[in-house]
Amino acid sequence: MNEISGGAGCLQGVRILDLTQFEAGPSCTEALAWLGAEVVKVENPRGGDPGRGSFAEPPGKDSWYFLLFNASKKSITVNLKDPAGVALVKDLARKADVMVENFAPGAIERLGLGHDVMREVNPALIYAQVKGFGEGSPFENNLAFDMIAQACGGIMSITGEPDQPPVKPGTTLGDTGTGMLLAISILGALYRRKDSGKGERLQLAMQDAMLHYIRVAFASQAAFNKPAPRAGAKLISGANPPCGIFPCKPGGPNDYVYIYTSRANPLHWQRLLELIGREDLIGDPNYATGAIRAEREDEIDEMVSQWTRQHDKHEAMRLVGAAGIPAGAVLDTDELQNDPDFERRGIMQTMTHPTNGDFKIPAWPVRHDGAPPPIAPAPLLGEHADDVLGRWLDMDSAAVGKLRDDGVI
Amino acid sequence: MNEISGGAGCLQGVRILDLTQFEAGPSCTEALAWLGAEVVKVENPRGGDPGRGSFAEPPGKDSWYFLLFNASKKSITVNLKDPAGVALVKDLARKADVMVENFAPGAIERLGLGHDVMREVNPALIYAQVKGFGEGSPFENNLAFDMIAQACGGIMSITGEPDQPPVKPGTTLGDTGTGMLLAISILGALYRRKDSGKGERLQLAMQDAMLHYIRVAFASQAAFNKPAPRAGAKLISGANPPCGIFPCKPGGPNDYVYIYTSRANPLHWQRLLELIGREDLIGDPNYATGAIRAEREDEIDEMVSQWTRQHDKHEAMRLVGAAGIPAGAVLDTDELQNDPDFERRGIMQTMTHPTNGDFKIPAWPVRHDGAPPPIAPAPLLGEHADDVLGRWLDMDSAAVGKLRDDGVI
Repeated sequence: MNEISGGAGCLQGVRILDLTQFEAGPSCTEALAWLGAEVVKVENPRGGDPGRGSFAEPPGKDSWYFLLFNASKKSITVNLKDPAGVALVKDLARKADVMVENFAPGAIERLGLGHDVMREVNPALIYAQVKGFGEGSPFENNLAFDMIAQACGGIMSITGEPDQPPVKPGTTLGDTGTGMLLAISILGALYRRKDSGKGERLQLAMQDAMLHYIRVAFASQAAFNKPAPRAGAKLISGANPPCGIFPCKPGGPNDYVYIYTSRANPLHWQRLLELIGREDLIGDPNYATGAIRAEREDEIDEMVSQWTRQHDKHEAMRLVGAAGIPAGAVLDTDELQNDPDFERRGIMQTMTHPTNGDFKIPAWPVRHDGAPPPIAPAPLLGEHADDVLGRWLDMDSAAVGKLRDDGVI
Repeated sequence: MNEISGGAGCLQGVRILDLTQFEAGPSCTEALAWLGAEVVKVENPRGGDPGRGSFAEPPGKDSWYFLLFNASKKSITVNLKDPAGVALVKDLARKADVMVENFAPGAIERLGLGHDVMREVNPALIYAQVKGFGEGSPFENNLAFDMIAQACGGIMSITGEPDQPPVKPGTTLGDTGTGMLLAISILGALYRRKDSGKGERLQLAMQDAMLHYIRVAFASQAAFNKPAPRAGAKLISGANPPCGIFPCKPGGPNDYVYIYTSRANPLHWQRLLELIGREDLIGDPNYATGAIRAEREDEIDEMVSQWTRQHDKHEAMRLVGAAGIPAGAVLDTDELQNDPDFERRGIMQTMTHPTNGDFKIPAWPVRHDGAPPPIAPAPLLGEHADDVLGRWLDMDSAAVGKLRDDGVI
């Protein structure tokens, strides 16, 4: 195994039967694929995962969205409306370690592939599900998507300007944030199963997953016994001024630098005064502590802005950061996509795709022994039928051909 | 093992030496503790993890923030400025499976506990690190906190209103979002190590981790070749109107319901028209497709708002959801904290803490065989010295007492 495949080797030999679609499920199984599991998407012969045609797709090709969430997987098509198709999925499940699904509530049971059935088919199977709302919740039968989870899970209530309506963060935390928590539980179950040989059932609701990501807001709730507020670009928990975004040249929509002077380190404020040429205020009791500065926040923000407006955000980040003060430019997707630093470090990697061409995407960002795991292309619809049915079920090409002729795959 | 401990049993026997602080590292090790690992925090004898006094703490007690991110762990104190303390950590590392740290860049190496040292101490150790910026990045020596990662990692550029400055999502994704990805890689490495017996090094940068959570924005970037925009409460990828938050009675800051009519299912729009009493528009070509409705978005939003304003958000969510249309009330932390549904389902659990009293917190939200794993209290500073040093290093109470007298622990 060469150095770059360090991470990709972790789950070598693990077989995952992937009945997921869109993002919450696919982001989960993709992370497992990047760590080396063999992830086989089971897709509808008519169009497959609806994410393939999700939005703004290249004409006649899979969407960028699909490619991003399905790298390094395999694909077979199975007609789940055909009893022979359902039987085929059961056969595959007998050879799988994990099965994952995120259909609408009740759908997998109606297909005859619910947990009660599958635990009989393969008692060692780890059976993992994502739904919008939890089993036993008043909304357990409701549909959900990313934005519904972010609304009902508290995320939106703490995002936006204080005197304005809530905002949905651009991050699809309701989907990928949920997928990551399920991946952790799947890996925990796999670890135990190595000794026990037993399967288990895992269930995660998108609404419930959101609570995990707003725990600082629950600390605020506990401290003040009222809803955690919206705080714009500042912190809902409050912070020493200066803390927030400051305008930079040339004044475009993302020309800001975040500057944070930590409560835990009074030197940040002193260093900042030196940097912006206000050494005269070092030690001034009117600015000495975070609590005092909080009463002069507007004045301090303007003082810092006078300096940041003289620099572009990259320069401001360099200068403030080099002075030992936490700082970060507000970077947009164009800047991130085209920054060669991410590619050089393997954080972004190029997918060479047979129909869509080259596409540089964020890869798994954790370095394993020095490098992030390498990515492979997202699969074409049904691309791996012969490969998977051959290796998992010992089918020869005639047998696979018959399934194809019969419309089962 | 009883039913509720299903998840907590996954990592039984796994020992984690936890040199993390604040949130990115602690959220990672806490997830592993909830799955059953023995997580031992190694803390500074003077005050411990600075998160213990992070903000708005109960007088003389640990902060709510600390309790939220350190449930189910143990704590020992070690003076890392004392060579005997460093030696003690090495002794513990010989008995550990995983070591995790998120000190400032260069700090762990200066303590004499860097990876090059520790892989000699224990070649089977999984050595995991969180930093703000990646090794090899121009900013690798810079400090970072959650908000810096959200600025530099693209999150802020896509959050907020289109014509206004960027907003920092209230979720601390730069911290917990990073911690979850590291937990996945640690679990992958543990899985492989069961056979190989070999340790490995894991490194994750908070900036790099953020790219993983904005991949829909990268799909937008790929499709339109320009920075993904901010879209308020709507979607950066665009969507069929109606999609967004709609005002509800009585008009408070979080009195909104999210309604989403999916591109993939034209029935959502038709069902909504029936619900709001506008059956007259069903089949009307002026409203028939998402693309056509996009040109009348303001009109459609007002039409839906006329209906939502007649209901409170809970009722609106019930009615819209029951009609088969994705819908979610914007819930705040007070509503979530006090909704008995989460407690009943084990998604929120009460920590009974010896000095802080009872505190209901979000637990690990994944159900393992029917229930989320049970939580245990966060540790008092140094609470488990005798327990851990006794079991891991066979020290008797006299030996532990001597370390205490010598100021090592």
